[in-house]
Amino acid sequence: MTTQQLIDQIKLKKSFLCIGLDVDLNKVPQHLLKEEDPIFAFNKAIIDATHHLCVAYKPNTAFYEAYGLKGWESLDKTIKYLNQNHPEIFTIADAKRGDIGNTSKMYAKAFFEDFGFDSVTVAPYMGQDSVEPFLEFKDKHTILLALTSNAGAYDFQTQTVDGKEVYKHVLETSKSWKNAANLMYVVGATKAEYLADIRKIIPDSFLLVPGVGAQGGNLKEVCKYGMIASVGLLINSSRGIIYASNGKDFAEVAAEKASELQIEMAAILESL
Amino acid sequence: MTTQQLIDQIKLKKSFLCIGLDVDLNKVPQHLLKEEDPIFAFNKAIIDATHHLCVAYKPNTAFYEAYGLKGWESLDKTIKYLNQNHPEIFTIADAKRGDIGNTSKMYAKAFFEDFGFDSVTVAPYMGQDSVEPFLEFKDKHTILLALTSNAGAYDFQTQTVDGKEVYKHVLETSKSWKNAANLMYVVGATKAEYLADIRKIIPDSFLLVPGVGAQGGNLKEVCKYGMIASVGLLINSSRGIIYASNGKDFAEVAAEKASELQIEMAAILESL
Repeated sequence: MTTQQLIDQIKLKKSFLCIGLDVDLNKVPQHLLKEEDPIFAFNKAIIDATHHLCVAYKPNTAFYEAYGLKGWESLDKTIKYLNQNHPEIFTIADAKRGDIGNTSKMYAKAFFEDFGFDSVTVAPYMGQDSVEPFLEFKDKHTILLALTSNAGAYDFQTQTVDGKEVYKHVLETSKSWKNAANLMYVVGATKAEYLADIRKIIPDSFLLVPGVGAQGGNLKEVCKYGMIASVGLLINSSRGIIYASNGKDFAEVAAEKASELQIEMAAILESL
Repeated sequence: MTTQQLIDQIKLKKSFLCIGLDVDLNKVPQHLLKEEDPIFAFNKAIIDATHHLCVAYKPNTAFYEAYGLKGWESLDKTIKYLNQNHPEIFTIADAKRGDIGNTSKMYAKAFFEDFGFDSVTVAPYMGQDSVEPFLEFKDKHTILLALTSNAGAYDFQTQTVDGKEVYKHVLETSKSWKNAANLMYVVGATKAEYLADIRKIIPDSFLLVPGVGAQGGNLKEVCKYGMIASVGLLINSSRGIIYASNGKDFAEVAAEKASELQIEMAAILESL
């Protein structure tokens, strides 16, 4: 998917919501556990109920790997279901991968070609040659961790290198990499006040913003500092939507929660 | 496996060799491709031929993920084969994972409990709460990326924060984390001269050292600066061993190459 196609979808749906599909079998409604594939059954129900309210889905691979081969199979079914039924939706493998060049290439092949995701999240610690193999894929997007939403972000990301924080150094350096136009960035909503500075470095890039809701981030604040003319934001919510109810009405309640966010987003987009 | 058990194995086998099982179907001998599971067939042959010469095996997960569900299954068969037949061998999932706390816990569960690996490599960018969930597992080891062997290591890892490089900051900071005794570190052999400084910060920790051979690192240099009384080194070689021949004699030639390194290691250990 091209960035323009994503922007078009945002304008069409009046939404820049991404729903995180982080399926924990301890948290899904109990009646699903008797399904042959409870993880996929859960995802399918959530997707069927919410696809008109969001522009992206983001399964975090950890939740699938934790269930071994069966989990990996559920992830495969989920991305194939999305690509077959909702090819207009942007898909994100939240995998936080990154390795030396020839190895990163294998990861890129796995997520872009085999699974068919539109994008994958990548960790920057190993530098340029660990990220560029992901950037080679046409109309695929690499979402680089910049400033994450967790407490540990203050351990290294906000440390100052020559008067500039490590995460800013990541943003600046990555701009010079080959096919940098295929880069997006993860910036946590819990640090909305950093967004003004971030926009000075990457004025045009899309940001994937986790941490609205469960982690305490505020949508209006994020938009105030992070939104650009082409929107440039994907706001992720996981637990606040998919686990809003654990009864038989879980998909319906998820849609209600997604709708609340979409309505808020539509109002913000109108004022653009 | 405890660290002491690993040290005992090193002394018994007179080897601190780790063999990287990075299986690329474009590089394995062609006659294996007609096997039902060529990846596992390759690994089994390599393990059968080399297990007496090394103390650790390190499959890099990227190479398995690149083959989708089948690859994941081959990885599962490989670790189970190792645990059943060679429980004395230290196993490393080279996965370079790391995510917010509850998500890292899922990765830890996947690699330590479901697969049954002794250790996993983890990226430090997201800080303390992304690493500590891995450290909670008794007799399991978390191998934190410190200074990697690739060119991109100079992009962020060697940048200076308050007069100290980022990777040193990672080493120092991680020492205060809960269950830090379960930490080991990745330090690339291509940067042997850094090892003296690194040993000042972490005098007792095991280091996993990739980059000997194919990437140009030198074994003697690494030992000179990095070895401690309890050895404290695992030297990894992947391509230089497993792809030394791509004929029917591939396992035999792999054993020869592993043996060359083991003999060199035995001599170094004797001079300790």
